[in-house]
Amino acid sequence: MMDEVVIRELAKPKLDRPIVVEGLPGVGNVGKLAAEHLVDELKAVKFMDIYSRHFPPQVLINDDGIIRLVRNELYYHKAKGKETADIIILTGDYQGLSPDGQYELSWRALDVLDRYNPRRLYTLGGWGIGKMIEAPRVLGAATDPKLVTELKKIGVTFSKGEPGGGIVGASGLLLGLGKIRGIDGACLMGETSGYFVDPKSAEAVLQVLAKALKVKLDFSALQEKAHQIDLITSKLKDAAVPAEPKKENLDYFA
Amino acid sequence: MMDEVVIRELAKPKLDRPIVVEGLPGVGNVGKLAAEHLVDELKAVKFMDIYSRHFPPQVLINDDGIIRLVRNELYYHKAKGKETADIIILTGDYQGLSPDGQYELSWRALDVLDRYNPRRLYTLGGWGIGKMIEAPRVLGAATDPKLVTELKKIGVTFSKGEPGGGIVGASGLLLGLGKIRGIDGACLMGETSGYFVDPKSAEAVLQVLAKALKVKLDFSALQEKAHQIDLITSKLKDAAVPAEPKKENLDYFA
Amino acid sequence: MMDEVVIRELAKPKLDRPIVVEGLPGVGNVGKLAAEHLVDELKAVKFMDIYSRHFPPQVLINDDGIIRLVRNELYYHKAKGKETADIIILTGDYQGLSPDGQYELSWRALDVLDRYNPRRLYTLGGWGIGKMIEAPRVLGAATDPKLVTELKKIGVTFSKGEPGGGIVGASGLLLGLGKIRGIDGACLMGETSGYFVDPKSAEAVLQVLAKALKVKLDFSALQEKAHQIDLITSKLKDAAVPAEPKKENLDYFA
Amino acid sequence: MMDEVVIRELAKPKLDRPIVVEGLPGVGNVGKLAAEHLVDELKAVKFMDIYSRHFPPQVLINDDGIIRLVRNELYYHKAKGKETADIIILTGDYQGLSPDGQYELSWRALDVLDRYNPRRLYTLGGWGIGKMIEAPRVLGAATDPKLVTELKKIGVTFSKGEPGGGIVGASGLLLGLGKIRGIDGACLMGETSGYFVDPKSAEAVLQVLAKALKVKLDFSALQEKAHQIDLITSKLKDAAVPAEPKKENLDYFA
Repeated sequence: MMDEVVIRELAKPKLDRPIVVEGLPGVGNVGKLAAEHLVDELKAVKFMDIYSRHFPPQVLINDDGIIRLVRNELYYHKAKGKETADIIILTGDYQGLSPDGQYELSWRALDVLDRYNPRRLYTLGGWGIGKMIEAPRVLGAATDPKLVTELKKIGVTFSKGEPGGGIVGASGLLLGLGKIRGIDGACLMGETSGYFVDPKSAEAVLQVLAKALKVKLDFSALQEKAHQIDLITSKLKDAAVPAEPKKENLDYFA
Repeated sequence: MMDEVVIRELAKPKLDRPIVVEGLPGVGNVGKLAAEHLVDELKAVKFMDIYSRHFPPQVLINDDGIIRLVRNELYYHKAKGKETADIIILTGDYQGLSPDGQYELSWRALDVLDRYNPRRLYTLGGWGIGKMIEAPRVLGAATDPKLVTELKKIGVTFSKGEPGGGIVGASGLLLGLGKIRGIDGACLMGETSGYFVDPKSAEAVLQVLAKALKVKLDFSALQEKAHQIDLITSKLKDAAVPAEPKKENLDYFA
Repeated sequence: MMDEVVIRELAKPKLDRPIVVEGLPGVGNVGKLAAEHLVDELKAVKFMDIYSRHFPPQVLINDDGIIRLVRNELYYHKAKGKETADIIILTGDYQGLSPDGQYELSWRALDVLDRYNPRRLYTLGGWGIGKMIEAPRVLGAATDPKLVTELKKIGVTFSKGEPGGGIVGASGLLLGLGKIRGIDGACLMGETSGYFVDPKSAEAVLQVLAKALKVKLDFSALQEKAHQIDLITSKLKDAAVPAEPKKENLDYFA
Repeated sequence: MMDEVVIRELAKPKLDRPIVVEGLPGVGNVGKLAAEHLVDELKAVKFMDIYSRHFPPQVLINDDGIIRLVRNELYYHKAKGKETADIIILTGDYQGLSPDGQYELSWRALDVLDRYNPRRLYTLGGWGIGKMIEAPRVLGAATDPKLVTELKKIGVTFSKGEPGGGIVGASGLLLGLGKIRGIDGACLMGETSGYFVDPKSAEAVLQVLAKALKVKLDFSALQEKAHQIDLITSKLKDAAVPAEPKKENLDYFA
């Protein structure tokens, strides 16, 4: 029988009470965009692949025709220079398909993370507000009042009733299950329309996270992606404008 | 692997063959409203949190920005004064998402309750009748004819064919599984439209239950909630009145 | 953890290689009607209740207000007089809700039946043909050519391509899983419209089965039910006739 | 409890590092048609039946009225003459119903195949392009660049972005799970409209596979099936032509 979660360990890094950052696909793909950007900027090293019966039964094909099974991945980054904490980043292709699978995947990720005695957990996501937004806020929620105070200082908004329905999926469960297992953490949610992948919202989240992690990040790659999305969405907006009769042509009838 | 049900015991109360009361979300939220009111009025003490893969993969956020995983909860109340029985109250955020999960959650709740050798089980719920009702009856169903007789005496209606489809969910399963495990019990169902949360129906259920439990309850908090709901529903009713032509304006045409 | 199937044994009958008959809810409820009629006519004795997480999370309420968990049941009948075989009858409130649950329930039923070393299995069902039918045929399918020959002799129709999609549910699985576990059997399917419960089709099935089991059955109770259904369906048919202008009234205009 | 996968071993062939070919129902039924044709042409011998709770709860009925449970099957063929490798063929009635079941079935198939230390895995499928096609290409994807190079030489197309969403189902999972378990393999996907079963696409796939397997195959049976489908589809096409006014009748008005 295939275990619900199958782990392939690629390396055994020695880490000193790392901070864990999670970003998986979700609203506006904010979490995943942010986590992948963090991996790229920190040149983080992959040390674990996570496969699961709770993911879609699917392989992806890269440009060379090589397949790989869908998965989640763990990367690590050792603190260097003025950085103060080792970092583990959890990202991947999918979240669990079923509620039950979501629980199991988060539980098993915590099993793995527990080995490294993590000092804190940050989960990243988008908070869909149903309209385009210029300057997305970063909303927060945390397992502990101390964390709320800390995060407010670095620009995170804690706002009564936002998000209203709580947090659904891995970003919520890792914190909720982490809390009952004794790991503190917070969720950082970038406001996003929810209609497009949103690198701008991902940047907003990472701007805050960089302060929390005390790392320096270059955002030009994310900003370039945001620019591309802006081009597409503004084209769509133009196309969606109702074809009004052009004034000039109608003037004759005035 | 995460167990299907994860229990966190907060205290180990010594209870003398307690009566168990269950009220979880359902039709009109009658059961949950009633159970929570009972917890508040008795100042019952929480002693157990129940988490489960069968709940939604969700955390809730309180007004201070603090998250907690969705759960069920057990409270206890030691009999005092003229009260004759210790009480355990089971309430919470959700019922199990799947039929299979419903069974497991009820089974495991019975596992826990068995430790306290409960003398009886009352499950609370709403019985949706599809129309607004002024004076909701409390319908009953029980595992044993003796209980039927007892409950009739304190005002519970036992009516052939009501409710028609039996009882679905935790209120049914705890009794059904309890019966095959040797615990007697009854379900008290307050009539409710099923369109709104219904504190009035919850009060009707609790009025009966208070007699069964021999506890005194103040209902003003529930009555205030019922009043709020009445305000909302009467506004909705007004809004739904078809826009009749106003007499004054039409008089000119008379 | 609640086992997928929970069995309550009420008696331990000694049976001599019984023939097993299964009839559970399905198309036209033919199987269940037939099995229950058989239980009634043979005055078969219940010896086992089968509860399961794969059934709906539901209790039923009888006319006295007494609840019971939904279940399947096993009855036995010892051969008497000219009868040649002991009989076990499997019937109940529901089939498993999910495909997976269907397999487990059939597998576990076979586990129980194996204890009695059954000589053969008959599963009963309806074969929906989408139109009303006066004289329903009984279609057959079996695990073994010998059985096909036998059943043809007592009036069962084996017809290429009928039923086209095979047999879905317990009536199929018990035979299919039984076959790989070494138990032979056949399915008897009464033709039925599929729009109503169909006691007439159930009688047709039982007429054949009575020959196979060498038991004498009285069919008046089923025939009375069929009569009641006929009354209802003919009323529905009348109601569905388009309201033609009545000749008499229009004659004045002729 | 019924195991998730129940295996019935019919023979224990001795095979020398066989090549495994999989073809199960899917888009255009290409994989299944190809695998079954291969079984027929090689006169491969069945040695294993695979039953599962993850298949539909269904038995099929053959023309003689004999039922059998739905299943997957393994066949073997020992290399003879100029052939260079023993072959195992996996085909059957269904793929797993749920994502979870798909994983388990592929995992357990790999458990069985591992016993034979297979040298390589070919999975066969259709790639739906939404339109009729005269000369279907065979697209490829593989676990290893060496395989890509090899397959290109025998006519397989590796095309960036085709198929876009990766490969879903058994043909993907066997490769993806096989890869993490150390077995190399490739998927051969015949282009197909996706609207009909497509023996022509199956032939295209097999033409390539025959080269890879170094076997000689006769394709006349597949070509006959393709001819039958062509007749049906061209009739459908004719029927779908909008009823144009016939020229002759309208000439009067010219």
